[in-house]
Amino acid sequence: MDAKSVGAPDLGAAALRRRYAAGEPAEAVIAEVYARIRAVADGGIFITLRPESEVAAEAAALPPFDPETHPLWGVPIAVKDNIDVAGLPTTAACPAFAYRPDTDAFVVARLRAAGALVIGKTNLDQFATGLVGVRSPYPAPRNALDPSLVPGGSSSGSAVAVAQGIVTLALGTDTAGSGRVPAALNNIVGVKPTLGLLSASGMVPACRTLDTISIFSAGVADSWTALQVAAGYDADDAYARRFPAPALDAPPAPVIGVPDAASRRFFGDAAEEAAFDAAVARLTALGARLVEVDLSPCFEIAEMLYSGAWVAERMAAVEETYRGRPGALHPVTKGIISAADRLTAVDAFRGFYRLAELRRAAEPALEGLDALCVPTIPGPVTMAEIEEDPVGPNSRLGTYTNFVNLMDLCALAVPTAPGPASRPGSVTLLAPAGHDGRLVALAARIERDAAVIPGNGLPRPAPLDFPAGARPGEAVVAAVGAHMSGLPLNGELTALGARCLGPARTSADYRLFALPGTTPPKPGLLRVGSGGRAVEVELWAMPLAGLGPFLAGIPAPLTLGTLTLEGGGRCTGFLVEAAATAGATDITSHGGWRAYLAAAEELPV
Amino acid sequence: MDAKSVGAPDLGAAALRRRYAAGEPAEAVIAEVYARIRAVADGGIFITLRPESEVAAEAAALPPFDPETHPLWGVPIAVKDNIDVAGLPTTAACPAFAYRPDTDAFVVARLRAAGALVIGKTNLDQFATGLVGVRSPYPAPRNALDPSLVPGGSSSGSAVAVAQGIVTLALGTDTAGSGRVPAALNNIVGVKPTLGLLSASGMVPACRTLDTISIFSAGVADSWTALQVAAGYDADDAYARRFPAPALDAPPAPVIGVPDAASRRFFGDAAEEAAFDAAVARLTALGARLVEVDLSPCFEIAEMLYSGAWVAERMAAVEETYRGRPGALHPVTKGIISAADRLTAVDAFRGFYRLAELRRAAEPALEGLDALCVPTIPGPVTMAEIEEDPVGPNSRLGTYTNFVNLMDLCALAVPTAPGPASRPGSVTLLAPAGHDGRLVALAARIERDAAVIPGNGLPRPAPLDFPAGARPGEAVVAAVGAHMSGLPLNGELTALGARCLGPARTSADYRLFALPGTTPPKPGLLRVGSGGRAVEVELWAMPLAGLGPFLAGIPAPLTLGTLTLEGGGRCTGFLVEAAATAGATDITSHGGWRAYLAAAEELPV
Repeated sequence: MDAKSVGAPDLGAAALRRRYAAGEPAEAVIAEVYARIRAVADGGIFITLRPESEVAAEAAALPPFDPETHPLWGVPIAVKDNIDVAGLPTTAACPAFAYRPDTDAFVVARLRAAGALVIGKTNLDQFATGLVGVRSPYPAPRNALDPSLVPGGSSSGSAVAVAQGIVTLALGTDTAGSGRVPAALNNIVGVKPTLGLLSASGMVPACRTLDTISIFSAGVADSWTALQVAAGYDADDAYARRFPAPALDAPPAPVIGVPDAASRRFFGDAAEEAAFDAAVARLTALGARLVEVDLSPCFEIAEMLYSGAWVAERMAAVEETYRGRPGALHPVTKGIISAADRLTAVDAFRGFYRLAELRRAAEPALEGLDALCVPTIPGPVTMAEIEEDPVGPNSRLGTYTNFVNLMDLCALAVPTAPGPASRPGSVTLLAPAGHDGRLVALAARIERDAAVIPGNGLPRPAPLDFPAGARPGEAVVAAVGAHMSGLPLNGELTALGARCLGPARTSADYRLFALPGTTPPKPGLLRVGSGGRAVEVELWAMPLAGLGPFLAGIPAPLTLGTLTLEGGGRCTGFLVEAAATAGATDITSHGGWRAYLAAAEELPV
Repeated sequence: MDAKSVGAPDLGAAALRRRYAAGEPAEAVIAEVYARIRAVADGGIFITLRPESEVAAEAAALPPFDPETHPLWGVPIAVKDNIDVAGLPTTAACPAFAYRPDTDAFVVARLRAAGALVIGKTNLDQFATGLVGVRSPYPAPRNALDPSLVPGGSSSGSAVAVAQGIVTLALGTDTAGSGRVPAALNNIVGVKPTLGLLSASGMVPACRTLDTISIFSAGVADSWTALQVAAGYDADDAYARRFPAPALDAPPAPVIGVPDAASRRFFGDAAEEAAFDAAVARLTALGARLVEVDLSPCFEIAEMLYSGAWVAERMAAVEETYRGRPGALHPVTKGIISAADRLTAVDAFRGFYRLAELRRAAEPALEGLDALCVPTIPGPVTMAEIEEDPVGPNSRLGTYTNFVNLMDLCALAVPTAPGPASRPGSVTLLAPAGHDGRLVALAARIERDAAVIPGNGLPRPAPLDFPAGARPGEAVVAAVGAHMSGLPLNGELTALGARCLGPARTSADYRLFALPGTTPPKPGLLRVGSGGRAVEVELWAMPLAGLGPFLAGIPAPLTLGTLTLEGGGRCTGFLVEAAATAGATDITSHGGWRAYLAAAEELPV
């Protein structure tokens, strides 16, 4: 039975929420998931598939539907089989290595606590060593779009499960590109978070200093929800880092780096090159300013991942199996890991020194960029190619991914409009550690613009909702005059990382004045004991760290105080010293500064 | 000739500034320096001493005295011989390794550009490997206070040169304690900056990921000046880090961790233990709150420095000499470095993993501390002891220093009051990376309180000047009421890192009101068009990053705006919304909130 002819259910979290809100039980969705598994009929996706009845029972036992407390209520997910799920074996695609954990990995526990339902454990390149998805003793998952291509790895099963419409979300891992390459090859979104943002507790390490759990979904919005749920400091993970909760950050006119002529590597794949050029052209149309970047330090860093010291981390992770039961290892994997035996501690430190120097060399080109945009892969690899040469084409796939974790960048692979021959395109956005939310916001714009049909004919993903309020670490600031969108001082807000939350009105306690002699012209908002009215303002979410510099730049007679909004809410906002309103024109009757400016333009000067 | 009988000149930078301001030439001071060198008559201090005529000529060629543009004008310094000075050989105490650099090390260049005069290159434990100061093919420098004791190392010559009053400042290096142990043994100040704050360009690495240049001086103030001059981002050093310029930071009631009972290690040295206890008791007297801390994770980290992977960094640094001319190495040094040959890259990574875990384990105990205070050494080591066993007593000296760089802490060793048997005491203050200025401020209080005669009978050091204004990255905030020192909301300022700059008055444009119904009672300052007067305020320097959270916590009707001060200066300050002064008591006649509170207390309630 052809999977397409059955039609993938809409497993987008928004669609599921609508169904659950209408009273449909989660068991109904689970039934669809297993029907889809049967329809797709790819025995290579899951290493361990949970019995349908067990997942259905777990679904039935969920607390009452409440998307506020359980943002992933009834959402089916798959977990790469190098991440622990309590009670299921963790094989890392090496049966001799397998163990059965008692507890969920930290990230799995967070997703399940948010209502997610684990369907099973997915196939991978053994020990997450590979980008092709076929270095496994289990049957390789089929590429969801074209079975003549490799599925991509190492998170092959997770990516295919999402692309085939079996699950809403799947966890992968990413050290060298394992969370991005299979996303490109299966036409879905792959989020490679900042190292240390998601706990690695309960994950089999590949290179412990470079690993992260990653997230696959059909569209950006669902990965974003999962990332917010999954992120959280885990004191038990020595490589966890204390980041603030990820927050969307959408520079209105982002500066985006793209490879310069010498850094474009497509290995003769004209279709991939054309798809990338088309995607880059759309960035300009979306308001981005492009800057050409020399990636040669990045490519040199990439070389170090397998030819340098870091392969010793792979040995450190599996040495017991490698030494004790060498026959249990996939021959290609074993060959790669064996390189560690030739590496001394001096080699390791020399590798770090060289990495530090190359990262420094890459810095000037990356400075001032909001993100870097590269092809996720230089072009697909066929099953036939990888059968002939199991290493070369694999290395090729890592061209634009291998350097990323060594450089401590976060990454997000997002489908772009299909190129020639209808082949799916994919770009990866890269940013410095901690800017995951910026990549999500940029990718959401690319996704909406490209209007891609993700995966193997999945429903178009729901757009990302930009939330309305301020988040922890932000203050809401009411702009009253020249700081509002499109007005001369708006750049002071955006330069400090503020996000526009939209228009609002004050309570009916204020009067508005046009202040004489101000450049650019500014109004003053004054709270009055009586005779006030509501005034139009614009609300911005400002990082608290930016609020200080913002305040320091505001000239007298303006102050920042507490504004009362219509409905009684309060926020920080511009107020004027009363003494400065003597001699100012009372423009309260206009209702706001924009209306006053519009009226003033209509008047003869 | 006994050095003490000649009497050390006062080479403190403040004393030199006074002499230079009075017109004395720098050559006069240089003449004193060389006279002192002759008087001290310790041939082990310098590996290369510049000819007096050459330094005198350099002194004569200095631009006209201007301490603003040249804060180290005419200040004699010594440089450890693993740091480049153009034209002088760099030996690292291994003649076979020596080279003659064309350019100054980055830090040396900055000190010289600020007017410092390099006298010579100082002796050290070969390749900075050791804490005793005698592992050198050159004669060991004599301990400046007691020749029966080791001078301490590895920066032995630099520490002794300062302690003997030969130079104002000396550069050392510090990987395992080489910038602190000899400070303790010679009764002077040793600053071990945050890794990456000072460039390592032009420094022979010991462990490149753990090394830093360090600073010795008789008193805290001179090290602070040198640190400010030396710190600066160097893009050519791959391990340089982008820190803001170091800034003094003096928590008024610091929380200071001290070793708990199980973490006290004095190896039976009761005199050292008593000196440390006395120093800790003074901390309480200075207003600190003490918290006992379990140092066992720190001690376990310390073990890793020589028994773990990092010894491979020492090999990486000198492998050519080690392999090519093994006879050129000091036998003890060679023995230590040879351990690297048994270490694989897998060992190296396992070491990093263990370090990450131990650092995590140490975190809870360090959280909430302003600094940690430990003995610099558990007690001195004699020349006789180290002749008998060249390794054991050396390791003992690193008890409280070896873990520091591996944990990315900054450190400052400062003399304390002499303990029993008049033996000099020394504590080391430790803080997380980037808080060097906090250690300097705390050490300045310890130094002033202890009234130590530093080094070998040097003049008492000039106290540290706390500068009056705000620095880059800070805003000046005028507190008007309950946020002033000693009043109920003052903690909101200090919790956000603000520093008190002292009292001030507004321009004569304001009126002050006691706001009814506020808890705690608060005043409101209102600028008026006429009829105003000057009001007492208190100025605080607030980090800009803290100003936002501060503003967000201020309730209506108070606002933050621009205050005009007496004399016309402007700063951020508290203002009240005019509407809120209706019904409030005008207390302007009191001149300020403190005066009003005092008057109110005198009235019958």
